[in-house]
Amino acid sequence: MPTIVGGRYELDRMEVNLRRKGSFFTSLREDLRETFLPEEPFRRRPDEAECHWSTLMLKCLVPILEWGSKYNLTKFQCDLLAGFTVAVLAVPQGISYARLAYLHPVIGLYSSFIPPLIYAIFGTSTNVAVGNTAAVSLFLASAIGAEVSPVDRPELYTHLLFTAAFFTGLFQAALGIFRLGILVEFFSHSTITGFMGGTAVIVIMQQLKGMLGLKHFTTNTDLWRWESAALGTCLITMLLLNSHVSAKLRRLFWLPVLAPLLVVVLGGLFAYVVHAEDHGIPTVGTLNKGLNPLSVSLLKFESKYFKLLLKSAFVSGFLALSEGIAVGRSLASMKNEQIDGNKEMIAFGLMNVVGACFSCYLTTGPFSKSAVNFHAGSKTPFSNVVMSLSVMAVLLFLAPLFRYTPLVALSAIIIVAMLRLIDYEKVLRLWKVDKFDFLICIAAFFGVIVFSMTAGLLASVGLSTLRTLLYVARPSTCRLGNIAGTEMYCDGQQYPNSISYPDILILKLGSPIYFASSGYLRERIMRWIEEEETMQYLILDMGGVTSIDSDGIGMLVELHKHVERRGIKIVLTNPRIGVGEKLKVSKYVDLIGKERVFLSVKEAVDVCRDNLQQYSKEEV
Amino acid sequence: MPTIVGGRYELDRMEVNLRRKGSFFTSLREDLRETFLPEEPFRRRPDEAECHWSTLMLKCLVPILEWGSKYNLTKFQCDLLAGFTVAVLAVPQGISYARLAYLHPVIGLYSSFIPPLIYAIFGTSTNVAVGNTAAVSLFLASAIGAEVSPVDRPELYTHLLFTAAFFTGLFQAALGIFRLGILVEFFSHSTITGFMGGTAVIVIMQQLKGMLGLKHFTTNTDLWRWESAALGTCLITMLLLNSHVSAKLRRLFWLPVLAPLLVVVLGGLFAYVVHAEDHGIPTVGTLNKGLNPLSVSLLKFESKYFKLLLKSAFVSGFLALSEGIAVGRSLASMKNEQIDGNKEMIAFGLMNVVGACFSCYLTTGPFSKSAVNFHAGSKTPFSNVVMSLSVMAVLLFLAPLFRYTPLVALSAIIIVAMLRLIDYEKVLRLWKVDKFDFLICIAAFFGVIVFSMTAGLLASVGLSTLRTLLYVARPSTCRLGNIAGTEMYCDGQQYPNSISYPDILILKLGSPIYFASSGYLRERIMRWIEEEETMQYLILDMGGVTSIDSDGIGMLVELHKHVERRGIKIVLTNPRIGVGEKLKVSKYVDLIGKERVFLSVKEAVDVCRDNLQQYSKEEV
Repeated sequence: MPTIVGGRYELDRMEVNLRRKGSFFTSLREDLRETFLPEEPFRRRPDEAECHWSTLMLKCLVPILEWGSKYNLTKFQCDLLAGFTVAVLAVPQGISYARLAYLHPVIGLYSSFIPPLIYAIFGTSTNVAVGNTAAVSLFLASAIGAEVSPVDRPELYTHLLFTAAFFTGLFQAALGIFRLGILVEFFSHSTITGFMGGTAVIVIMQQLKGMLGLKHFTTNTDLWRWESAALGTCLITMLLLNSHVSAKLRRLFWLPVLAPLLVVVLGGLFAYVVHAEDHGIPTVGTLNKGLNPLSVSLLKFESKYFKLLLKSAFVSGFLALSEGIAVGRSLASMKNEQIDGNKEMIAFGLMNVVGACFSCYLTTGPFSKSAVNFHAGSKTPFSNVVMSLSVMAVLLFLAPLFRYTPLVALSAIIIVAMLRLIDYEKVLRLWKVDKFDFLICIAAFFGVIVFSMTAGLLASVGLSTLRTLLYVARPSTCRLGNIAGTEMYCDGQQYPNSISYPDILILKLGSPIYFASSGYLRERIMRWIEEEETMQYLILDMGGVTSIDSDGIGMLVELHKHVERRGIKIVLTNPRIGVGEKLKVSKYVDLIGKERVFLSVKEAVDVCRDNLQQYSKEEV
Repeated sequence: MPTIVGGRYELDRMEVNLRRKGSFFTSLREDLRETFLPEEPFRRRPDEAECHWSTLMLKCLVPILEWGSKYNLTKFQCDLLAGFTVAVLAVPQGISYARLAYLHPVIGLYSSFIPPLIYAIFGTSTNVAVGNTAAVSLFLASAIGAEVSPVDRPELYTHLLFTAAFFTGLFQAALGIFRLGILVEFFSHSTITGFMGGTAVIVIMQQLKGMLGLKHFTTNTDLWRWESAALGTCLITMLLLNSHVSAKLRRLFWLPVLAPLLVVVLGGLFAYVVHAEDHGIPTVGTLNKGLNPLSVSLLKFESKYFKLLLKSAFVSGFLALSEGIAVGRSLASMKNEQIDGNKEMIAFGLMNVVGACFSCYLTTGPFSKSAVNFHAGSKTPFSNVVMSLSVMAVLLFLAPLFRYTPLVALSAIIIVAMLRLIDYEKVLRLWKVDKFDFLICIAAFFGVIVFSMTAGLLASVGLSTLRTLLYVARPSTCRLGNIAGTEMYCDGQQYPNSISYPDILILKLGSPIYFASSGYLRERIMRWIEEEETMQYLILDMGGVTSIDSDGIGMLVELHKHVERRGIKIVLTNPRIGVGEKLKVSKYVDLIGKERVFLSVKEAVDVCRDNLQQYSKEEV
């Protein structure tokens, strides 16, 4: 049945809903929940319908209660195997990375004992295996080492590293508690790829230097120790061959896990037999038996180091979290599981705070160990307990045996591990798929190599943020045309055969219409209008606009005034829920007339064409 | 004609275009142009088709060549009247604002002489009248005054203010030359409203303090000068009455323009007659005749002040530009004209660089003078020349007469001008229309009052940027349903009566799918999938997605793997031009199958339902 609107007959129209259900506070709560609790941590699953809320809360905060209650023998067997396997890697890697951070090797072992126990209680990932990482070790060494030399004042330096872990832990836990996981999302994969690659290059160069006995690459006066270099080359070749073979033969997947320990054992035996120290092959040196000593009293809270520690904690906290969470996420997705980013942050934070009190430095969920844990079939975070207890056994009984380990063996382990971090295939893929992501990656890579780790990270994150801001400042707007034979209106540039009408200009506005983009949108729309000669209707398709602010509405008002003077009428289609409401509250809908708001472009075009025909008939 | 795809009969399909025309570099050039040259400054208008490109270029760089060639007597008469009118306001305002910046009053007059001449050559706005503004004067006084006291070292302080103007000019011109107008867009109207309001409150309190003869509000020992306060109160009342009357009676629009001069003249006469200085009413004091002295040699380029000057120039440059360009834009839109933001920046920059060499401090296009210029009917930037020459006449012949002007008269002018800047109606409107904009405005307002002008500005711009980043991090995604009787699919929350199918979940993805949002989108989509029991098809409507990066594609791949394990098929609809291309290059389209990409949701739903029916028939 035709209804009369503004003196003209029109078709029965679909009603456009401009109102949001509920008050301002309802929608504010909704928005805040989407921002900070996107995964609804407190929702009840069907099987928990009967539980008291306090039980649910406790289960939510201490995940071990959740999975612990369903633990069984099968899972235990799997975790046992996985835990042992990871421990085999944990020992040599712990010693190696501690040396990378200029710490006593035994601290690397300490760090594989206490933190995994804490993680097992609070962590949600069934795959993450806790330990140190090369990137964070190197970063801490360069950041703290710049102010307190690890060579001249080793004790103070070590205590500062404990304190840095303490602060980092507090920072990480705070991020998790205040649900700021959103911040970690600002490290893109492109940034991480570039950063890891750059770090790997630096670590490799540093280790090669050490292996060749050079202090500086440029001076010729350095002592060339051929024995050390020869042994190192042998061990690296062995490790590389090993990776190569295991990559070819899938069933030898355990080879690369065992390899580092093999290198340490073989290297140690060799050094013991030939009295390596006498031949210019330095070894790790004395490692005393015994568990982590308490280090609470050693933490340095003096104001002198406060700024340095806060700065280091900030960067290393983000670094550690982004590696740990990314690793947890990608492994979880392979098993079709979910991890909770904010809970993970709290778990990482707590394990570092506690670790720092027991002579551990910064730990996270490193890729290498976690991948091994995953492939060895871990079922719950209990595999971390198994690993931890294995490392404890080493600390209690086997530690002194590692004194003969040649330093070059550790270098070899580090170098081969780092080679895997240089993911040139991914960089190539970035170039192919997204040039801007490639730029972000390359900025991190060269920033780290040429300037510093912080500089590379900042440059890369800066570029990512710039991209985000540019996206908002230049929302892509296009001219629509009708796809023949359908009711669809699509981008005229994408579908050049689409049909446009001489009297009607249809624009699909980009989103969001914010202060940063309203100036641009005005210019862009004006230009389209200027290009048209005979235009009578300007249809703005708002279907893609999910947000608008008061400057955006101001721009629409200005546009309305501008086109009205030229006799052009503005028509809106499909305003979305929040946007339509604002257009109504700000009286913009009243300004252009409620009858000029339509649900679909098709409907709007039909009515406009109808009016134009009636008009031309009346003219005649 | 039905075609066979994947072994099933399907309807003839609309072809989806995934390819962009042209190479990577074509699209890069296109993107750069949209970002930095959105208004196409070098395009030829129809009447310029014959011109040589160098003529066009010159006209583009020196706008006076453009409008000068079309200048005529009618325009001249209008500009003459407008120029004189503005000059009447320029003289008292110049003196007042110079005092606000702790400068000698004559510098305010100098600043209304040289810069307008330069602006007339390079400016594009026909409405902007050049002069000092209260906000920038106050900011410079607080920023430079914090390091060099204007009371103890007035000469050095003055020279530093010239140098600050010089640096600001360079900075502004550079922004214009490098087409970075986009940066100024990051000051929203909400920020400006709050900032101006806060500044006005501070200025009013400061002036009241001066008027009452108080040094500090808290000490009682200050000298209470009742004469000064009484005169000030009279003059303020006069000015306010004046505004009130002219607001009521439209034809007295010239009253507020004349009022400040009237206040200065009456105040001066009064002071002369009663020998005000002897009764505790301080006056301006000696003003020598003569034009601007050269100040090139006075500019302080010493490294000692370099950092201070750069910092001040950065903030004041942005402040001055955002006021000048916003004023120019809003006045232009009332006349249906366009101004060119980047050219305006160059014009403002050049006038400040030249001004700084002739004893002028920072100028821009203030709202009060420009509005008067507009209402008095200026037609071209030539009205600035008229104003400039009028001020020159004052400098040459009338300056000494102003020596009797009581300082309270200047305070009264400033206070009344500032009252107009507190736009509480706009703040109320912001609260009603957009709560976040209200917050941005209030942050600037209280930031300026409680902390400092820079702090207020930073807090407000920070909040605006946060909003932008949050928009990108949490793109609004919704579940679509069919509006009965149409081919449209709309937000089920907005249209609760829309129809959904049990086996098919249709989601409209928010834009952009970037590193910052891909994690959230994954969680959000997974939650929707979990809620569904019998789902077989997941239709992702990409029509609103205007940009995607490699992390976003990674998320889609992960999602595909996840749902495939549950036997759910992903279907894409309407990928936009750049997005479709990336999905193709990254092999995502191959992964889900090219036959699962549709142009419209309707088509996708039809095919899915068709397949489901065939499947259930085969089951039977």
